[in-house]
Amino acid sequence: MLKTIIVGASGYTGAELALYIAKHPGLELAGLYVSENSQDQGKPISALYGKLLGVVDQIIQPLATADIPAACEGIDIVVLATAHEVSHDLAPHFLAANTTVFDLSGAFRVKDSAFYEKFYGFTHQYPDLLEKAVYGLAEWNAEAVKGTDLIAVPGCYTTTALLALKPLQQAGLIKTGVKPTINATSGVSGAGRKASTTSSFCEVSLQPYGVFTHRHKPEIDAHLGTPVVFTPHLGSYKRGILASINVVLKEGVTPEQVQEVYEQAYQHEPIVRLLKGSYPAIKNVEGTPFCDIAWAQDGEDLVIFSATDNLLKGASSQAMQCINIKFGFPMTTSLI
Amino acid sequence: MLKTIIVGASGYTGAELALYIAKHPGLELAGLYVSENSQDQGKPISALYGKLLGVVDQIIQPLATADIPAACEGIDIVVLATAHEVSHDLAPHFLAANTTVFDLSGAFRVKDSAFYEKFYGFTHQYPDLLEKAVYGLAEWNAEAVKGTDLIAVPGCYTTTALLALKPLQQAGLIKTGVKPTINATSGVSGAGRKASTTSSFCEVSLQPYGVFTHRHKPEIDAHLGTPVVFTPHLGSYKRGILASINVVLKEGVTPEQVQEVYEQAYQHEPIVRLLKGSYPAIKNVEGTPFCDIAWAQDGEDLVIFSATDNLLKGASSQAMQCINIKFGFPMTTSLI
Amino acid sequence: MLKTIIVGASGYTGAELALYIAKHPGLELAGLYVSENSQDQGKPISALYGKLLGVVDQIIQPLATADIPAACEGIDIVVLATAHEVSHDLAPHFLAANTTVFDLSGAFRVKDSAFYEKFYGFTHQYPDLLEKAVYGLAEWNAEAVKGTDLIAVPGCYTTTALLALKPLQQAGLIKTGVKPTINATSGVSGAGRKASTTSSFCEVSLQPYGVFTHRHKPEIDAHLGTPVVFTPHLGSYKRGILASINVVLKEGVTPEQVQEVYEQAYQHEPIVRLLKGSYPAIKNVEGTPFCDIAWAQDGEDLVIFSATDNLLKGASSQAMQCINIKFGFPMTTSLI
Amino acid sequence: MLKTIIVGASGYTGAELALYIAKHPGLELAGLYVSENSQDQGKPISALYGKLLGVVDQIIQPLATADIPAACEGIDIVVLATAHEVSHDLAPHFLAANTTVFDLSGAFRVKDSAFYEKFYGFTHQYPDLLEKAVYGLAEWNAEAVKGTDLIAVPGCYTTTALLALKPLQQAGLIKTGVKPTINATSGVSGAGRKASTTSSFCEVSLQPYGVFTHRHKPEIDAHLGTPVVFTPHLGSYKRGILASINVVLKEGVTPEQVQEVYEQAYQHEPIVRLLKGSYPAIKNVEGTPFCDIAWAQDGEDLVIFSATDNLLKGASSQAMQCINIKFGFPMTTSLI
Repeated sequence: MLKTIIVGASGYTGAELALYIAKHPGLELAGLYVSENSQDQGKPISALYGKLLGVVDQIIQPLATADIPAACEGIDIVVLATAHEVSHDLAPHFLAANTTVFDLSGAFRVKDSAFYEKFYGFTHQYPDLLEKAVYGLAEWNAEAVKGTDLIAVPGCYTTTALLALKPLQQAGLIKTGVKPTINATSGVSGAGRKASTTSSFCEVSLQPYGVFTHRHKPEIDAHLGTPVVFTPHLGSYKRGILASINVVLKEGVTPEQVQEVYEQAYQHEPIVRLLKGSYPAIKNVEGTPFCDIAWAQDGEDLVIFSATDNLLKGASSQAMQCINIKFGFPMTTSLI
Repeated sequence: MLKTIIVGASGYTGAELALYIAKHPGLELAGLYVSENSQDQGKPISALYGKLLGVVDQIIQPLATADIPAACEGIDIVVLATAHEVSHDLAPHFLAANTTVFDLSGAFRVKDSAFYEKFYGFTHQYPDLLEKAVYGLAEWNAEAVKGTDLIAVPGCYTTTALLALKPLQQAGLIKTGVKPTINATSGVSGAGRKASTTSSFCEVSLQPYGVFTHRHKPEIDAHLGTPVVFTPHLGSYKRGILASINVVLKEGVTPEQVQEVYEQAYQHEPIVRLLKGSYPAIKNVEGTPFCDIAWAQDGEDLVIFSATDNLLKGASSQAMQCINIKFGFPMTTSLI
Repeated sequence: MLKTIIVGASGYTGAELALYIAKHPGLELAGLYVSENSQDQGKPISALYGKLLGVVDQIIQPLATADIPAACEGIDIVVLATAHEVSHDLAPHFLAANTTVFDLSGAFRVKDSAFYEKFYGFTHQYPDLLEKAVYGLAEWNAEAVKGTDLIAVPGCYTTTALLALKPLQQAGLIKTGVKPTINATSGVSGAGRKASTTSSFCEVSLQPYGVFTHRHKPEIDAHLGTPVVFTPHLGSYKRGILASINVVLKEGVTPEQVQEVYEQAYQHEPIVRLLKGSYPAIKNVEGTPFCDIAWAQDGEDLVIFSATDNLLKGASSQAMQCINIKFGFPMTTSLI
Repeated sequence: MLKTIIVGASGYTGAELALYIAKHPGLELAGLYVSENSQDQGKPISALYGKLLGVVDQIIQPLATADIPAACEGIDIVVLATAHEVSHDLAPHFLAANTTVFDLSGAFRVKDSAFYEKFYGFTHQYPDLLEKAVYGLAEWNAEAVKGTDLIAVPGCYTTTALLALKPLQQAGLIKTGVKPTINATSGVSGAGRKASTTSSFCEVSLQPYGVFTHRHKPEIDAHLGTPVVFTPHLGSYKRGILASINVVLKEGVTPEQVQEVYEQAYQHEPIVRLLKGSYPAIKNVEGTPFCDIAWAQDGEDLVIFSATDNLLKGASSQAMQCINIKFGFPMTTSLI
């Protein structure tokens, strides 16, 4: 049994991970931590998430940086479900304690350290860690994940968009000079578990936000290898992302070619489901680890739809896929 | 044109009132105010409520207590959409400035000043105002409303429950010794416009709260004249209250008697709709000033249903009814 | 591996059961059936429920009464997720084929055959089966479930109400002559998977229905042993029931006594969770097999809250509990 | 007072129109009609729409084609809120009765009669009426509306998209050879008031539909004058459309130029609101006649957002704008 701890356990993704780890036959949930000044410390996680009562009732404990070495005694796996800056600061300590770190934040997702100054507003202190970090897009980077001890789990919009676009891009089917446009809608849980008028029940309403400024846009560019136009929207529902992507294909690309590149990419992947005869819907991926993909073509115009649960394939279940990959469990262990 | 100002204009009930006043043929919206340290000051109300853009665009201004006399120059009507303590403190100043005050808070609703210590946690300073204040339950207290310059607009749950129970209670049809039980569900807007995890989109879920402790329970008792058991619930929708009320009738009370007391109470009241052949539903009162009432009887058991929009008949449109009553406008002016 | 088939597999409860059975280590999902003239025949269940794609993809087959003996070759367990009349007609055939039948309908829930004429509109043809049928309220009738091959799984409102009321009633704490009143709200899935304006997205709104006429009222009376006043409501959400129950206690009943009867009833039951410090909320039971119960007392007045997922503890997971009980699996197998 | 009747009054758009007409100072609601075999005939409209109780209670009457001349005695205005084929068949009869016809269906929206065979599946019988019909996009075609007696009120997606795109297209700012892509999400009311599993509460979930096949795509093409890629989505909310539109601008087009073309188009239009400092949100247009527009530019990439209430600016309030234009009332009469 691999001993696993979660730091930042009180948030939505932390709670989802606690449940996955508790059910995993090869993992032991060895600790739930929050920062020293969190009001959630000392409570069982099931006091925050009533659904977990009788299922996962471990106490959430405070963790000071100085206590990390002691907390890591005998620990194999650390999942960081913390803010970007916190992950940036903590990861080296956990790595120094010989644990394997799976970070759900953006702190290690892009190799170029200038990226952090520009889009995250801080100067990255660990270029060596950026070098060693592997981007944990499970279906595309499994081999690399096996070979590192620092996995940067991708962002939610990024995962949803990349899984739809990479097969086309890798196969060179996208028309040169015309950017793919991604319009994606996320449920409110994407904003995290905190009080805010923006995510208050009476204020939520379908609308765009972060136009041309969302941090997942450069993350998509970096890992797709070509620039996109990305427009995120807030939807009036709890969980799930639907990305609707417009692409102009190179002249003469046939439906059969498109079909083939998707099948080649995903026919042996249990988590990506290529739909036939229907389009992705939030309800079909909500609460599941799946990414559903479908598309339609009209001449050179291709529309691709990709749906995930933002807290799962967009965060916690993808982290669990990476854990499964890294430690040799079947890809879907604890997930399906 | 009667000049009207709203204090506490940035909240949900304030915004509804601003729209009602702006559309009223006999009123002029002469000022929108918030407290001195509100972050909303200096903004047009339509910047807070995008729906009002191009309809009501007045700037929300800060109001210090010292500035009340100047602000009341030429003003006829003041609506206080402020917190209980704030209304308690401000009302005397506005009355001193010879305005008629319509207070949406609980500060003047019950004559017994001990009520405030027990349920609101402050000592009431103005027993004379408690004496002069009239409880603005429009369908029951119209005559008294005409004769005062301080109207305490009833609470949302209270209005919904009282309109259903008063006809029975006044007619003496309720069995002695068996308390009516009121189970009521309110939309999230009842919690007001503020950031809170309780009213965050991902956390809202049908559940009870304030069991045996909600302030509207003693308010109902006081104005019904007999104690009730009251259980409020939060519902996963924006606006509206549905109260489901169980009553045991005195032996031998017939359906015809029940029908008669409701018709006598409300047949000439345009805002209370007695349904025939259907039960109240939130969707039918949402966004309207109406209270819908229906009931079913099985022997001595009577179930009564009453529905309102908590922000309207439960607050702003009832305030407007009181304004209409006080100043001689038809009851439904600006409301339907 | 016990071979299990589901009849009526295309409905919401059938689909939930398919998933539970597929994940159960001691059961094999041996067949999914619908009636001969269902439009769903020939489709994989995952074509109806996209969430199941890649998880349960079995084809739904038509089943004529004449084909039951053949379909039951080697089958151990039959779950009927069919309409009342259909269950009534089919159950004898499945029993004749030596299977154990778990019926989710109302066809065998009450021993008195007059009940069916009065509340279901048909004359029950099988008084012997009514005699042998055991009411599968898992926490109360486990021993009897073990001893029969026809289990009538309780209704959703009934389960939610009975689990809250039985401890008090059995202990004799309820005041004689004052009926408990149950106000319960169910998500829209309670109406089943069928096109109807009542359950269309734009029409759903919190409102009462079936007042004094709902079939679960006499079912509660029969299994509680005392009459209640029951008022069901439709809520504007997908799944879950919250019952708010008002009871008048016998004179002198203390909070300690109330606490004790609930603890005695449920302290060793993993599926009923007695909450401390919070009240039941739909979100905490939605998608789970749990029944959450809490209460508050004010003198002789007691309010009890009970919440379940109507499709799970109110149907499919309770059926699975009964299967686990009958065949000696741990109570929560495949459920948590 | 212009006497006005509504045919197809039982649907969502018919009910909205009934309310607008009832409140209009220059119109008299002279009749509500449905087809001869509608189950809604003989009921007051407030029996279908409880919100209208006490506000609009007229009886809905059946109307056979043969009775049209009699029904049109003294009638000035006919609003057809009927299906495409029904409008196609009925319009000539109403025109023959010397009424002015405002048709909410697609039957007269595009001049090319081949359009109907291709996209609507019927052969248009009235090329002369196609010739005389004016497309009632109120902000763009007011002069033409004044000069005809057959106004084809635009589709909901079409209105939302055209108001956003026409200023750019007319000014020649869109890059040649790159189609604008429109991703739009509509509330469920867009599917009309009818029982269907697709719009049942438990099945609705954000997802695309009608990809490359929706009838509003060729309607947009025809009235924009250039082809677009259009992808409609169903959203899990009742009312409102948000269109997110990606456009590539001609080289060198500046933000000032974009600003100017929008201001020139709409600065004197009360119904189109150009937002400053925020993006359109469904909540701000829901229940209003407005179209909210905003945009963001990044080099050659422009994203435009446009929001309407699909039942109002997308249907009934635009019909009312056209009535106001045609008969000389101020544009916003009865609407704000």
